[in-house]
Amino acid sequence: MKIPSKHIENVVEQLASLPGIGKRTALRLALNLLNRSKDEVDTFAHTFLDMKKFVLKCEECGNVTDTPICSICSNSGRDQQTVCVVEDIRDILAIEATESYKGRYHVLGAIISPMDGIGPNDLNIEPLIRKAGEGTIKEIIFALSSTMEGDTTNYYIYKKLQNFNIPITTLSRGVAIGSELQYADELTLGRSILNRQPFKVQQ
Amino acid sequence: MKIPSKHIENVVEQLASLPGIGKRTALRLALNLLNRSKDEVDTFAHTFLDMKKFVLKCEECGNVTDTPICSICSNSGRDQQTVCVVEDIRDILAIEATESYKGRYHVLGAIISPMDGIGPNDLNIEPLIRKAGEGTIKEIIFALSSTMEGDTTNYYIYKKLQNFNIPITTLSRGVAIGSELQYADELTLGRSILNRQPFKVQQ
Repeated sequence: MKIPSKHIENVVEQLASLPGIGKRTALRLALNLLNRSKDEVDTFAHTFLDMKKFVLKCEECGNVTDTPICSICSNSGRDQQTVCVVEDIRDILAIEATESYKGRYHVLGAIISPMDGIGPNDLNIEPLIRKAGEGTIKEIIFALSSTMEGDTTNYYIYKKLQNFNIPITTLSRGVAIGSELQYADELTLGRSILNRQPFKVQQ
Repeated sequence: MKIPSKHIENVVEQLASLPGIGKRTALRLALNLLNRSKDEVDTFAHTFLDMKKFVLKCEECGNVTDTPICSICSNSGRDQQTVCVVEDIRDILAIEATESYKGRYHVLGAIISPMDGIGPNDLNIEPLIRKAGEGTIKEIIFALSSTMEGDTTNYYIYKKLQNFNIPITTLSRGVAIGSELQYADELTLGRSILNRQPFKVQQ
């Protein structure tokens, strides 16, 4: 694909560097932007610069925020003794949407993935260990993806937390609510039989 | 979805304004950018500004270009008497990739689409009519999408060109080469029977 403009080609290259965007899609997006007014493109470009300039990491949990302490950590109405360990803000948004959790979070920023060159040192783990050492945490919930990388990360943090004698839990895994049994994947179904739970009458 | 940073929310809003990008994808892209260095984000943002600032429309054909006349129009080796009418540069890239066309192009920039509020005046049509009036064009090829909008645009331009007595052709439509007949859609197959062509032995 030989684009007859170096400037459009640069935009295509930058857009195609984003995850899940191919060159063809990138060109479509570039042309869409090219058809906008100068002011619109100015606004478009400057939001990226502003984001990089002004977005902070919460000093408590590592979540992205516009203030030194994020809105969840500064909310005194939330349970400060329960900490849910997540990969990034998208997991927080998903959990918050359930309205089932009123504790705090700890954001790792990434999970251990040797294939992508991400080791334990690239994760925001130390502040969690420090907080655990202070003795105010009553429960730590592991809420990472149920993948090889997530499991590895869970294990790494588990070893680091072992000496503090804090109960560690993880999200329950099993057949999704509302889904038909016959469509559940074998691994999930097998695990949900092995990890079967006491029957409870729904309220 | 309540993002705890106004700046990230702005980026998500801008990215989600692009065609085919939803809010969820936009957030994934925004976080990817947030994890890059300041220099990388600077480069990312400035390519958009540069594109808007420096990309021109070819004075001859309306194609995007970095120079006043695009590389195709300024190529004296190409047939100047044949003009292929396309919607935008992506169609040119597709046709150029076939290496089957050595004429020039005329880029409309859009096609008539009342649903999207795009009328004939939003299209780059006048220069084509002017060129047709100069009497140097021997053939005009309509290469717009085979949709209601494409057909409407074809008809509109056809009416404008009627008095110049220039042969107008259009891309042949039919069953794709290499595809099995049973999978061709009814409309295409029906039309390709009605518009059957003399059998030629392939060289």
